[in-house]
Amino acid sequence: MSLFSKDIKDLNDLFIHQLQDIFYAEKQIAKNLPTMIEKATSAGLKQVLSNHLRETERQVERLQQIFEMSDATEKAVDCPAIDGILEEAEDVVGEAAGDEIRDAALTAAAQTVEHYEIARYGTLIAWAKLLGRDDCVPLLQETLEEEKAADKKLTQLAADQINLRAA
Amino acid sequence: MSLFSKDIKDLNDLFIHQLQDIFYAEKQIAKNLPTMIEKATSAGLKQVLSNHLRETERQVERLQQIFEMSDATEKAVDCPAIDGILEEAEDVVGEAAGDEIRDAALTAAAQTVEHYEIARYGTLIAWAKLLGRDDCVPLLQETLEEEKAADKKLTQLAADQINLRAA
Repeated sequence: MSLFSKDIKDLNDLFIHQLQDIFYAEKQIAKNLPTMIEKATSAGLKQVLSNHLRETERQVERLQQIFEMSDATEKAVDCPAIDGILEEAEDVVGEAAGDEIRDAALTAAAQTVEHYEIARYGTLIAWAKLLGRDDCVPLLQETLEEEKAADKKLTQLAADQINLRAA
Repeated sequence: MSLFSKDIKDLNDLFIHQLQDIFYAEKQIAKNLPTMIEKATSAGLKQVLSNHLRETERQVERLQQIFEMSDATEKAVDCPAIDGILEEAEDVVGEAAGDEIRDAALTAAAQTVEHYEIARYGTLIAWAKLLGRDDCVPLLQETLEEEKAADKKLTQLAADQINLRAA
């Protein structure tokens, strides 16, 4: 980002900037999920993460659709937040000795990713509504529901299996 | 973190590691909130962030109590996730031209911070229960409720004021 200009002049600019930020985040998540799936031992966790990888790919496509509908450049801007979240996930998973502990750490890391996205899409939907962008609200809402459902599934899986095995 | 040893050997190690991670995060948040309060223009936003700064200070104390109760070292381990979230907040707020847009960006950034904490404390509570740590569950629960309430207040404020002014 430039230090000498203020590039975000109105709510539409902020909306587009945040779209570009979550576009980068979704692409990073799609890139990192295969490694997480590989490191997971629990069949249930592998399944939830694999389903979410396919969802994430569709979420990237939805964002591409929104860029097109917004006459905005399909661009990913650096998102230090998701980089940090994924770096931390890699660190803690790498430090975990044993399959059960690694699965517990992976599940927690995946939930942190989901919560980041829940916060972001919640804001994007609020802004889209104010901007009268009824064309993209349903697309964003669909993704938000998927993120919430993924978080819920991970919570359930942790409670029913993953954490019990780790304890 | 060491590349050559696996330091997290059981669920208690993972619990303590995650406590040290959120301890670092809370301290960074407490350090960054005064700047966010200063940059905010809306009196309502200043108020919500100021209240949350006082809460954050109490949350740090609660974590110190938990370290003591756990016979664990009161240590903050680097948490790249919160560093990334706060760096991103600073970037986007710095790019915003005009008070109204900056307030909208600040509110969204603060909600991302809250969601990170909601994910983390949710996991910590699940692990504490499994570990039979009934002594610290209520302390963690109290913090989780504060984070959820702060997120809710920010959502309300954004809907009632901040976003309307920015639109």
